[in-house]
Amino acid sequence: MAVMILRYRDEAGELRWGRLSSQPPAAPDDVIEVVDVAIDGNLSTGELIAKFDQNPELFERGQSKQIKAKSLQSPVTSDATLVCQGLNYADHAAEAGHHERKQNLLFVKASSSLTGPYDDIVRPAGVELLDYEVEVGIVLRTKLKTGDIVDDSNVGSYVAGVVLCNDVSARDVMFGASFFQWFQGKSYRTFCPTGPVLYLMTASEVAVTLENLEISLTYQGVQRQHANTSQLVYKPAETLTQIASIMDLRAGDMILTGTPGGVIAQGTPKLVETLKTQLLDDARRKDEMRAEMKKLGNFLQPGEALSLTLRDLHGGTDLGGQYSLIAEE
Amino acid sequence: MAVMILRYRDEAGELRWGRLSSQPPAAPDDVIEVVDVAIDGNLSTGELIAKFDQNPELFERGQSKQIKAKSLQSPVTSDATLVCQGLNYADHAAEAGHHERKQNLLFVKASSSLTGPYDDIVRPAGVELLDYEVEVGIVLRTKLKTGDIVDDSNVGSYVAGVVLCNDVSARDVMFGASFFQWFQGKSYRTFCPTGPVLYLMTASEVAVTLENLEISLTYQGVQRQHANTSQLVYKPAETLTQIASIMDLRAGDMILTGTPGGVIAQGTPKLVETLKTQLLDDARRKDEMRAEMKKLGNFLQPGEALSLTLRDLHGGTDLGGQYSLIAEE
Repeated sequence: MAVMILRYRDEAGELRWGRLSSQPPAAPDDVIEVVDVAIDGNLSTGELIAKFDQNPELFERGQSKQIKAKSLQSPVTSDATLVCQGLNYADHAAEAGHHERKQNLLFVKASSSLTGPYDDIVRPAGVELLDYEVEVGIVLRTKLKTGDIVDDSNVGSYVAGVVLCNDVSARDVMFGASFFQWFQGKSYRTFCPTGPVLYLMTASEVAVTLENLEISLTYQGVQRQHANTSQLVYKPAETLTQIASIMDLRAGDMILTGTPGGVIAQGTPKLVETLKTQLLDDARRKDEMRAEMKKLGNFLQPGEALSLTLRDLHGGTDLGGQYSLIAEE
Repeated sequence: MAVMILRYRDEAGELRWGRLSSQPPAAPDDVIEVVDVAIDGNLSTGELIAKFDQNPELFERGQSKQIKAKSLQSPVTSDATLVCQGLNYADHAAEAGHHERKQNLLFVKASSSLTGPYDDIVRPAGVELLDYEVEVGIVLRTKLKTGDIVDDSNVGSYVAGVVLCNDVSARDVMFGASFFQWFQGKSYRTFCPTGPVLYLMTASEVAVTLENLEISLTYQGVQRQHANTSQLVYKPAETLTQIASIMDLRAGDMILTGTPGGVIAQGTPKLVETLKTQLLDDARRKDEMRAEMKKLGNFLQPGEALSLTLRDLHGGTDLGGQYSLIAEE
């Protein structure tokens, strides 16, 4: 049976792992019930998963207590490697100018971008095109190594759980970098709100769950993104097989599976023209991009709010939501 | 006093850390003398550095023995984050079409790309434009965190040592990815030969050494790259300050400081035109790039050899060399 795992800071300021025993939270002031499973919160996500696999009953007992959702931390710890898929929903690929996807697009975010589900997202000084991206994160149960072939029949032995993520992105940094490097523009601290819960599954539950997760994002009260993982262009199993052919990953590492359509930045004809014409002039490209993109909206501004949700449609289970305010550096 | 640290597999197949007590090696069949400092080779580079800082005398005693250079492993362990600088020598920036550098370009390589200095570089199936990049790697002594300002006066408290690296690159994968992601094309296993030695310094030696390192690369008997770190566009101290403003790093993590001119791929007018015209058509861009680049040479082919060197010009110290054969997947 899947459990919802939390990582939180207790009254004494200590990090703890726990199991959610009430409805999942969606806002920082929600009060939730957590079973303290007596596991040090300084253990990594990979170590926590190993404990679950060795003895799932460990997560059934323990002292129950109430905590404020605001005390929740990312259930993915900062030792994790974060591999991201780009343009992995057809509608988002189209809004970025790519109408037909022929290859899986992989990049990484720095793990120090991880932050809690109710923490502020800090807009770095100099960033003008701050954007959101709701995504499903997939957390590994075991290491991924050369030659591994992952399919629906064994995906549960590689994937331990899923978690709600926001792949926050500074578009002007991404496309202002020489040859468009995405790493820096996706890697600032607080650029990966993660949680509230790690939905930790037994192996047999994984394949069907991965196909039936619903995500949404609401910006300033208006729903802007909404999708189902059945719409993913490159599915988790085939993506893991591809990653295994390139590099190693460890238990606790996370794949962010890409965002659906509805982000603020759009690949307008003028933007595409700018990217082409100013390909080698990073400064002018950034300036022209800002001028064009600001016609679409103000992008994320200090004081504005984002709400994100994750739902397991197969099990009919609400997996909670994020609420983030944008703050200034 | 700086020491040359090695990581090697002993006769019993166990990983060991040691100190080099002979001339450094440059080829796999060289026999070198190593002082076994009785430190488990499964400790990470960050842990090794902490031991050095606590008690440098630890590295003075121990049993001396002879080993084959071929048994050397990367002295940077695979838990390290590898942050890379791009286009950080003026001549390489120019050959890539960027004649004036106005910002530091950062990206990452997967740490599973790390391999020993005499191991084969495996060309992945489907890669046609395999290229080399000799670089100086800078290994952190301590964590880098928000607000850290690094300059020549304190760089020695952040940087522990330097190491010779080859930032092997699949150009067709890098520029064939949507919006030119470099991560995958730089991250295949064996794409980061590192070593032979970690040149571990006391804090006061670091600043002057970082300004006086000489690197070279010879491909099939012809020297193709040669540079001095005094030519770096963005220096290590200012780069660390910039990285600290974005993300955290840990002791043992490595910054690859960029490669000088002389790589095989060149930003010819026709290539730049292709990148612009086919910006949104990944497959056609890759095909046209291959056709144009193959006019420049065959790129790295199975059976060919690369030799790399690193020298501390200030101390007048040879820091050894790499020798890698290209192999087929």
